[in-house]
Amino acid sequence: MNQPSIRTDYKIDDRWRLQTGQLNVSPRFLFGPGPSNAHPRVLQALGMVQVGHLDPQFLEIMTEVQTLLRYAWQTDNRFTIPVSGTGSAAMEAGLANLIEPGDKVLIAANGYFGLRLIDMAQRYRAEVVSIQRPWGEVFSKAEIAGALEQHRPKILGIVHAETSTGACQPLEGIGELCRDHDCLLLVDTVTSLGGVPLFIDQWQIDVAYSGSQKCLSCPPGIAPLTMSERALEKLNARKDKVANWYLDMSLVGSYWGSERTYHHTAPINMNYALREALRLVAEEGLEARWKRHRRNAEMLWEGLGRLGLECHVPHEHRLSSLTTVKIPEGVDGKAVQKRLLEEFDIEIAGGLGELAGKVWRIGLMGYNSHPAKVSMLLKALETVL
Amino acid sequence: MNQPSIRTDYKIDDRWRLQTGQLNVSPRFLFGPGPSNAHPRVLQALGMVQVGHLDPQFLEIMTEVQTLLRYAWQTDNRFTIPVSGTGSAAMEAGLANLIEPGDKVLIAANGYFGLRLIDMAQRYRAEVVSIQRPWGEVFSKAEIAGALEQHRPKILGIVHAETSTGACQPLEGIGELCRDHDCLLLVDTVTSLGGVPLFIDQWQIDVAYSGSQKCLSCPPGIAPLTMSERALEKLNARKDKVANWYLDMSLVGSYWGSERTYHHTAPINMNYALREALRLVAEEGLEARWKRHRRNAEMLWEGLGRLGLECHVPHEHRLSSLTTVKIPEGVDGKAVQKRLLEEFDIEIAGGLGELAGKVWRIGLMGYNSHPAKVSMLLKALETVL
Repeated sequence: MNQPSIRTDYKIDDRWRLQTGQLNVSPRFLFGPGPSNAHPRVLQALGMVQVGHLDPQFLEIMTEVQTLLRYAWQTDNRFTIPVSGTGSAAMEAGLANLIEPGDKVLIAANGYFGLRLIDMAQRYRAEVVSIQRPWGEVFSKAEIAGALEQHRPKILGIVHAETSTGACQPLEGIGELCRDHDCLLLVDTVTSLGGVPLFIDQWQIDVAYSGSQKCLSCPPGIAPLTMSERALEKLNARKDKVANWYLDMSLVGSYWGSERTYHHTAPINMNYALREALRLVAEEGLEARWKRHRRNAEMLWEGLGRLGLECHVPHEHRLSSLTTVKIPEGVDGKAVQKRLLEEFDIEIAGGLGELAGKVWRIGLMGYNSHPAKVSMLLKALETVL
Repeated sequence: MNQPSIRTDYKIDDRWRLQTGQLNVSPRFLFGPGPSNAHPRVLQALGMVQVGHLDPQFLEIMTEVQTLLRYAWQTDNRFTIPVSGTGSAAMEAGLANLIEPGDKVLIAANGYFGLRLIDMAQRYRAEVVSIQRPWGEVFSKAEIAGALEQHRPKILGIVHAETSTGACQPLEGIGELCRDHDCLLLVDTVTSLGGVPLFIDQWQIDVAYSGSQKCLSCPPGIAPLTMSERALEKLNARKDKVANWYLDMSLVGSYWGSERTYHHTAPINMNYALREALRLVAEEGLEARWKRHRRNAEMLWEGLGRLGLECHVPHEHRLSSLTTVKIPEGVDGKAVQKRLLEEFDIEIAGGLGELAGKVWRIGLMGYNSHPAKVSMLLKALETVL
């Protein structure tokens, strides 16, 4: 048989030809800042046989995912899609599409992900100004109003649920302030979507992004993004191309819109999984889901208190989805994490940045926000401490 | 119970609360340009329970994935990782990390993905020059040498396996030419990795990227990338930050390197799947795998000939993984695709760009490169034509 392409003048090297067994991980209970454990129904959907990314069956699935995302986010935004990457990709998509070089962008930073917004915005050549609060605190409406007045930015970026601190930023009224200043409001909802009350349209948020692996209990690898008509107007009025091809929403939007134009190959199976995760949200209903997250968080906080542990964030600004706990003096935080992982298969995380070495981060997200899981975690913590 | 965050002054809107059934797709035989069908073992690994992205168990999986990728690509490159996105993200990563504003970049374009390289490189403010060939043809070594001589670019970008045309670009000797001109060689191996002979190190390729959903038979959503020490030197010598945060390999590299520094949450389950897909490559062995792809492609070409169909690319430059077939005069190409899909659950694709309406694209990739599948496809085609 004629095999012109099988050249014999190159030698195949077998040094990296690893012989290793099938996947054999000890399943963990994921109580860190994410990923949370995927719901079993989500894992089942994930493994379904693929169809093509332009198959009529897949196009229908895309429409369902968009519809269900609108429910979870409480928005009518026609541009509501999953980005083919993790939450950070959706974060960058939000900024990359709105920022034109030289635009003034105001970032309200009170944690790690606020700082990330600053870094990203600079890469798109924005003129970035910021206001800052200590990690664990939130901004008052007056502070934001003052900064908008002073800086007159085109975009305000703020984090609803700071995964690095456990603080929930109140957003009521901020959208209105932004409209008064002809400014777009971009909000990080990575750790709030599906777990904490969130109303994109009623709060007049222009751009929001999230992750799949937090309160939606879907594996990481796909990331929701929504943009208002005001945001799309800015995108459509751009003079130059978006400085990022993969995340150019004027191209991606044509695939998720009525044209269905090929841009990149959508992650089919991740979309299967996200659809199932969002179906679980719709079945349970947002109110019941938010209340469940809150109830289990209160149970955790009460239990931590009984163990003599203190939360880093004041009660009124705590996230139900993520709790930061002060590491008591004299306790080796990392050693506790290690014992939980090795003896109990339980993952919790340490702090980031300013809070490194000072707090543990405990997530109760989606499928993991369950009284039995809280009991398991509290008892294990008690044993280890 | 105190529930300060459950505000009652916003009303939950149920209009988008879709009630829809569990995932119910008719499984397809994917003989298009990708995705190909994932191997059943890969789908099984995909659905495995997650561990955290900083879990010691996951760090070990990461090392295995890197090792197995080095085998599949025949490279010792220490920087060999999967990017957390689809093939286009890895393509963009290759360009974004190497290009500094004003760099001259030469793109050899003989199809859709060559043109995409031009678009992407421009977004990173490169000075892009290009040489072009009709779609389906390949470049001679002399043409490339001439263009390098004329333009003196810092980077040459070329497509090994043009998914839009089915042509396989010979790469032997081009790396040497690039070294002579102090130019980095960037190669698109999306449709060749794991299916067509490819030697990153022996061919002196500096940057290569691929997709998971082609000859590796893994679902889309994760994308291999490898960079030589020469490429890393250019990255490390940059004056400004990479103009793309998510794909900044100086940050991503710290997570995949020995530091294991958090950058973004890796798509855990997609890494499980890729590991299994690469394990299948190592088990079979590259030589056997390349020969299998070739054998089944020859079987397809012979069968197509017997049906009176003609291939678009001359035999010596055909890809084993993707075949372009001329749509005979008087035949409605889209109608044929539709009947194959609806009556046989078989997906093949039409042409892109210059070849739209002129060819069908038939992929025999990875798990789908099998004599029984070829028989199925040929018989179905015969029935429909």
